[in-house]
Amino acid sequence: MPADLDKLKARLQEIYDLEAIASLLSWDQSTYMPPEGSSARGRQLALTATLAHERLVDPELGHLLDDLEPLTADLPYDSDDSSLIRLARRDFDRATRVPADHLSEFYQHLSESYEVWRQARPEDDFQRVRPYLEKTLDMSRAYAEFFPGYEHIADPLIDVHEYGMKASRVRTWFSELRQALVPMVERITQQPEPDMSPVHQHFPAAGQLELGLDLVHQIGFDPQRARQDKSAHPFMTRISLGDIRMTTRVKEDDLTESLFSTLHETGHALYELGIDPAYEGTPLATASSSGVHESQSRLWENLVGRSLPYWEHTYPQLQAAFPDQLRDVPLEAFYRSINRVQRSLIRTDADEVTYNLHVMIRFDLELDLLEGRLEVRHLPEAWRSRYKQDLGIEPPDDRDGVLQDVHWYSGRIGGGFQSYTIGNIMSAQFMQAAKSEFPSIDDDLGRGDFSHLSQWLAEHVHRPGRKFTPEELVERATGRPLELEPYISYLRDKFGALYPS
Amino acid sequence: MPADLDKLKARLQEIYDLEAIASLLSWDQSTYMPPEGSSARGRQLALTATLAHERLVDPELGHLLDDLEPLTADLPYDSDDSSLIRLARRDFDRATRVPADHLSEFYQHLSESYEVWRQARPEDDFQRVRPYLEKTLDMSRAYAEFFPGYEHIADPLIDVHEYGMKASRVRTWFSELRQALVPMVERITQQPEPDMSPVHQHFPAAGQLELGLDLVHQIGFDPQRARQDKSAHPFMTRISLGDIRMTTRVKEDDLTESLFSTLHETGHALYELGIDPAYEGTPLATASSSGVHESQSRLWENLVGRSLPYWEHTYPQLQAAFPDQLRDVPLEAFYRSINRVQRSLIRTDADEVTYNLHVMIRFDLELDLLEGRLEVRHLPEAWRSRYKQDLGIEPPDDRDGVLQDVHWYSGRIGGGFQSYTIGNIMSAQFMQAAKSEFPSIDDDLGRGDFSHLSQWLAEHVHRPGRKFTPEELVERATGRPLELEPYISYLRDKFGALYPS
Repeated sequence: MPADLDKLKARLQEIYDLEAIASLLSWDQSTYMPPEGSSARGRQLALTATLAHERLVDPELGHLLDDLEPLTADLPYDSDDSSLIRLARRDFDRATRVPADHLSEFYQHLSESYEVWRQARPEDDFQRVRPYLEKTLDMSRAYAEFFPGYEHIADPLIDVHEYGMKASRVRTWFSELRQALVPMVERITQQPEPDMSPVHQHFPAAGQLELGLDLVHQIGFDPQRARQDKSAHPFMTRISLGDIRMTTRVKEDDLTESLFSTLHETGHALYELGIDPAYEGTPLATASSSGVHESQSRLWENLVGRSLPYWEHTYPQLQAAFPDQLRDVPLEAFYRSINRVQRSLIRTDADEVTYNLHVMIRFDLELDLLEGRLEVRHLPEAWRSRYKQDLGIEPPDDRDGVLQDVHWYSGRIGGGFQSYTIGNIMSAQFMQAAKSEFPSIDDDLGRGDFSHLSQWLAEHVHRPGRKFTPEELVERATGRPLELEPYISYLRDKFGALYPS
Repeated sequence: MPADLDKLKARLQEIYDLEAIASLLSWDQSTYMPPEGSSARGRQLALTATLAHERLVDPELGHLLDDLEPLTADLPYDSDDSSLIRLARRDFDRATRVPADHLSEFYQHLSESYEVWRQARPEDDFQRVRPYLEKTLDMSRAYAEFFPGYEHIADPLIDVHEYGMKASRVRTWFSELRQALVPMVERITQQPEPDMSPVHQHFPAAGQLELGLDLVHQIGFDPQRARQDKSAHPFMTRISLGDIRMTTRVKEDDLTESLFSTLHETGHALYELGIDPAYEGTPLATASSSGVHESQSRLWENLVGRSLPYWEHTYPQLQAAFPDQLRDVPLEAFYRSINRVQRSLIRTDADEVTYNLHVMIRFDLELDLLEGRLEVRHLPEAWRSRYKQDLGIEPPDDRDGVLQDVHWYSGRIGGGFQSYTIGNIMSAQFMQAAKSEFPSIDDDLGRGDFSHLSQWLAEHVHRPGRKFTPEELVERATGRPLELEPYISYLRDKFGALYPS
């Protein structure tokens, strides 16, 4: 039996290593690869994906899992070995349900769809992407059908990102959250806007990058195990638990761009850096879910990185890095400028309060599409009408409307928007639980001491890796099921103080 | 038949892409990988090597080659298809001769040997590496025995680097070259040394890197298809024909370090950039041999990069980049400082004249070891005595003696030192032939015009890739077999003018 377990681990490690190699190929493509390297890079990525997939659906792996099944009966649910077998079984079952033909057709389709979108977006040409999006919708529905017995057709799609979570539950949370947010935005936007001039001065790129790294090293971003580079779109990726990469981008006329993307990606990086190193090379060595991952990036970007206590300690460092620009800007003015709330068209530029409205519009439209209640040809119109209704503004074109996000043009419908808001909800519940164990956390942040918060997150959120489902993890970490209250309270308290009228 | 050829190409492309992935993994390890990524990187490299090797020795590949053999009879030797089949057969035969057990034992041994050497060298402890080197020698001899029927036991080892070249021929060239070089060094070193102060000032690293890239862009280093990064030891590697990477290192108190390593690696890069792009993904898309590769790096580093015409054009740019340091240094003084000849201990620091003496000492010692005429335990002593004899100096310790190069501690005995000098010899023969087609080349260089030289090299040396053996390539390119005369004349003319007494 232990011999079988060793065999299983050897097979899983090969899959893990092939996926890691693919991550490095992608990272390099986004950072350093010369432009003319892209066609060979496409071949290299396709080869790596094929090799990993062949191993993932190998019937021998299935037999090994069958043989190991009895072992799990004698082991506690949360033991490393039974968790390893459970996750391997889950991945094997999911991978073998989807025919190879469907997958290869879908990836081929997506690479065309992405190219067409890349050209169509700047030209505001929804009609060009429409047939591709229709096929993506058909194939997303077909994917769901490989998992019969679902409660809602979106469930198998949500499952990829948030294992075990159901559309019905997400819909309930989102509807309640919307009811709190719409009037909150209404109330805030009637008040005067903060002065944005503190962050919209000239900040040389090199100085921003150096300061950003200084700040995240203080938080725990470990240069022995992690690095930062530049890319067009910031991301975090894992090559191994000892080799975590994040990227950032810099705007010289907007201090917030690199600052908050660096803090955001650091949250992702700290999650991976906190996973039990003993899990390296196994399916345990990854995140519980996209939502949990997002909770960590949002926690460090927003709950810490846009908080007053954090800047009480950090603002003097920022002023020292940019004395000419910030010497005469009081902390209070800087703090208000990084927390402006406004009705806007672009999700990725949105503030903490309105961000979730953007996400929830997309999620609802996805459910309508998947249920067949909305046709792709009516999507631009539905988009505009929901923006008007929820955010009080209407996009003047599709470029900044239904064409703005890459997701639908490079992945499935139901492809994970929901995880951004689930992450936000979780972030507040984690922070509340951490503060209840360590009531000094706000004071700690004000002194630049991140140890209690980091320790709590590492122990309760990071270390278990993928051992628990997202909802299990939240309940084990906080003693409560996932709930909205901490997040709504957090927003009410913070933005009530910032916008007091 | 064409279907079989397509099948062959698909198999070869997979091997090519796996080797390319391994190259990227290694490049990343030397440039950007965080230190703690190394253990997973070892696994990733081993996996990639295994996957490539499995495909290279797959009996199905052998059958395919058998089926395709008749096709080659109808095709000219130098046609792309027959060359592809010939090279694939050569690689398959070589790979299948060596048992997998031998290979895995050898790679395991080398990784230990390298680690021990890395620790033993700074401690000047030859006794620690001795048993490892003895095993390396045994296994190098064993490797040769997998290719029975050789004329000299070193031939199968040389073959890996210079296909078709024989120890007997190399020995003859080297003996003749030594007879010319020893008195040349004797004569030169009796004359006063040039003033080295022009290149030993403070040159800020950023300015050196920027200038180096400017200079090689002028030569043809194409940023759309190639890039430069920093690493501890400069190297060039190919990810694909559209993605060539080179590295450099900078010393702020020695201008020559980054300048000439950049020119050297650019020579390697231009070779790969010049290979027929139609060969991408096949065994044709690589170099003819290590020696031919080295001929290109030496040609650009030395025959161009340390020539007076090149600096007549380039020196004003260098002065403009470092006005405080070089404004008052005349071209003549700078030119002399970059061409100092001295008896020295370290091969990699050696000048154009003495460099080959370092190489030939190693090659002769390798033949003695392989023939069993020298035992590893007597190697340090043999090293010292040959240095005394050929270079007139004796290393005070093994650290700067027999322990100085990584080669014997991380590869086979017979592992390629000879290619450095073969490359030097070729570089002069290529340059002579280029100048005989384009007599204006020296004038061109003096005007910063590299077009004739680049065009000649691309057409005669680069474009064919690996289609011809190194000796075939030289004969086709220059109309003569490989010969010493052009190289010896080049050294006599250049250094006769620099050291006229």
